[in-house]
Amino acid sequence: MPKEKFKVTPWEVKGKVDYNILIRKFGTQKISDDLLERIKKHTGELHFMLRRGIFFSHRDLDWLLDKYETGEEFFLYTGRGPSGHTHLGHLTPWIFTAWLQEKFDVHLYFQMTDDEKHLVKPLSLEQTTGFAYDNALDVLACGMDPKKTHIFSNIEYGKTIYKEAVKIAKHVTFSTAKAVFGFKNSSNIGIIFFPAIQAVPCFLPSVLEGKNIPCLIPAAIDQDPYWRISRDIAPKMGYYKPTQIHNKFIPGLKPGGKMSASDPSSAIFTTDTPEQIEKKIMNAFTGQQPTAELQRKLGGNPDICTVCQYYFYLFEQDDKKLEKIFEGERTGTLLAGEHKADLAKRVKDFIAEHQRRREKAKKIIDKVMLRD
Amino acid sequence: MPKEKFKVTPWEVKGKVDYNILIRKFGTQKISDDLLERIKKHTGELHFMLRRGIFFSHRDLDWLLDKYETGEEFFLYTGRGPSGHTHLGHLTPWIFTAWLQEKFDVHLYFQMTDDEKHLVKPLSLEQTTGFAYDNALDVLACGMDPKKTHIFSNIEYGKTIYKEAVKIAKHVTFSTAKAVFGFKNSSNIGIIFFPAIQAVPCFLPSVLEGKNIPCLIPAAIDQDPYWRISRDIAPKMGYYKPTQIHNKFIPGLKPGGKMSASDPSSAIFTTDTPEQIEKKIMNAFTGQQPTAELQRKLGGNPDICTVCQYYFYLFEQDDKKLEKIFEGERTGTLLAGEHKADLAKRVKDFIAEHQRRREKAKKIIDKVMLRD
Repeated sequence: MPKEKFKVTPWEVKGKVDYNILIRKFGTQKISDDLLERIKKHTGELHFMLRRGIFFSHRDLDWLLDKYETGEEFFLYTGRGPSGHTHLGHLTPWIFTAWLQEKFDVHLYFQMTDDEKHLVKPLSLEQTTGFAYDNALDVLACGMDPKKTHIFSNIEYGKTIYKEAVKIAKHVTFSTAKAVFGFKNSSNIGIIFFPAIQAVPCFLPSVLEGKNIPCLIPAAIDQDPYWRISRDIAPKMGYYKPTQIHNKFIPGLKPGGKMSASDPSSAIFTTDTPEQIEKKIMNAFTGQQPTAELQRKLGGNPDICTVCQYYFYLFEQDDKKLEKIFEGERTGTLLAGEHKADLAKRVKDFIAEHQRRREKAKKIIDKVMLRD
Repeated sequence: MPKEKFKVTPWEVKGKVDYNILIRKFGTQKISDDLLERIKKHTGELHFMLRRGIFFSHRDLDWLLDKYETGEEFFLYTGRGPSGHTHLGHLTPWIFTAWLQEKFDVHLYFQMTDDEKHLVKPLSLEQTTGFAYDNALDVLACGMDPKKTHIFSNIEYGKTIYKEAVKIAKHVTFSTAKAVFGFKNSSNIGIIFFPAIQAVPCFLPSVLEGKNIPCLIPAAIDQDPYWRISRDIAPKMGYYKPTQIHNKFIPGLKPGGKMSASDPSSAIFTTDTPEQIEKKIMNAFTGQQPTAELQRKLGGNPDICTVCQYYFYLFEQDDKKLEKIFEGERTGTLLAGEHKADLAKRVKDFIAEHQRRREKAKKIIDKVMLRD
């Protein structure tokens, strides 16, 4: 086995991620062609993120479909750590989640971990709870069904969340939590308790409805460790193990790593102005040759070109058109300036539309948020 | 220093406690005669629990009186782990707390740790929250001022409690919590977080009122470790360190140790019937001689006689009458049967009156309990 040159934890993603190694390391399953066919039977078409392997790994998705096919409705659960504004990397799984919700017509529980972000970042609770509301607008703007979507901040829905977390925490020892998350003596006691809080939504609809309801979690694969604990304790508490579907990270505008909120120039935020978007994309790393002449002669590499990757992950859903863009990059007919300008226009249009939806979301947000 | 033959932690009290050693070990201060005089200036008389050294130790009580004398009102905070019905050992500090509240005319915040008891005992959260309400009736029956008393269960007031606990937890590392409480790898992550929950009421009135308010905690000395953490983090959070006044344990009806809810025959519960009380007291350990003849000749030892100790801790507030009882025990004029029968009558009268107050408390409990 090759030496791993990358690192993936719930708090850190470093280096060029080899997703096949990650599947082995985390012990998840690759989404097979058979499983894709089975999904297609229910959805009528496959979302481009499934076709392209952006969602690439799962736990017990086949079991979930067994249940669904015998008439048991499941629910979706995903979340966000509200430490700042939302960027395109965050939207990727949410857009897919909205599609799942529409195709299967199911409820979505969306957890804003404002408590966690206060515990691990130099942010006040007032700031993180503020971001929770701000980010919730972006969630709705992705096209969630407001009637079947329930967004909550752990702090604002704290009575319900804390109560269920206490029941879960009783079954999680420090050694288990330490083994999964690598806690140290210097870790604060809030973040040590947090795995119980993040496990709550796996079972919450079952508690609220008074019956066992299967759970599907679409999320980036770095969050997987949290659900290992949930899966471990589920049988002890009389619930189904939550199932998962994992996505890859949308790359940053700079080479290597994922789009990161802690480096604003690496990411496009949903609150960015057209000028900011234009500037960030025109500065993006393309992996093209140093001069137009050389690029025309030698061509570039779409795999390391962040502009190509943006099309791949979000901005060109038509596979044939995408191939044309990749081809242009590869053969040198597509030069960096034009390449970036085209993407900048797409992204600006996308964000403009997203911001319109975000404004509309402000009118319904109060009905969608759960509170105690 | 003599080998310690006793053990005092928030979860366990074992052996014959040497309170002078405990003061040195815990680093608290003995309540001096000067301090008693100073209290008397404000209260007009000294409660028998102060006169008799039942409340014997403190942290910064002199500082609290400095504040009070310059016009700053303080508040009282104490609590209970609701794992069963209330016994006389629990009532001791509450009766004293009601006296403090009356004499200083201050607010009382009373925490029911139903979360903690679920985390460490084989009890469901429904059971511990149930006991929280049951025990709250006993608190009110001790004569608290309902207008200035705020009782809450951590679960039912969970939104407020969890929010403030998260802010506190950020300042408490695992190594600090471990050093104070001796957590192990097998400890569950809920009980590791719990010190933050128990610290909340030290600062909660300051948060709710938006100003720094001094806190006085009357509680049995085994709870002291919790406040060490609160005192440690208070300056970091911009609050006064909570001050404390500690009581000794009311002895059980059997020799050695404290009155314990886990051994029902060692304790008299507020829900006991007159017959149960009679039976428990008639079976109590007196430390008298094996026969009436020997007792008349040699006398007994009031220090190890649980009947004498009950008079001392709760049932004979008049010092002269108490001395007469002790004298009778010492000289052998007071025989076990009469001794116990006298106490049984007192206890039955006390519990009957307590139960009447408990019934009255049911009418106002809803107004006194804080809820989210």
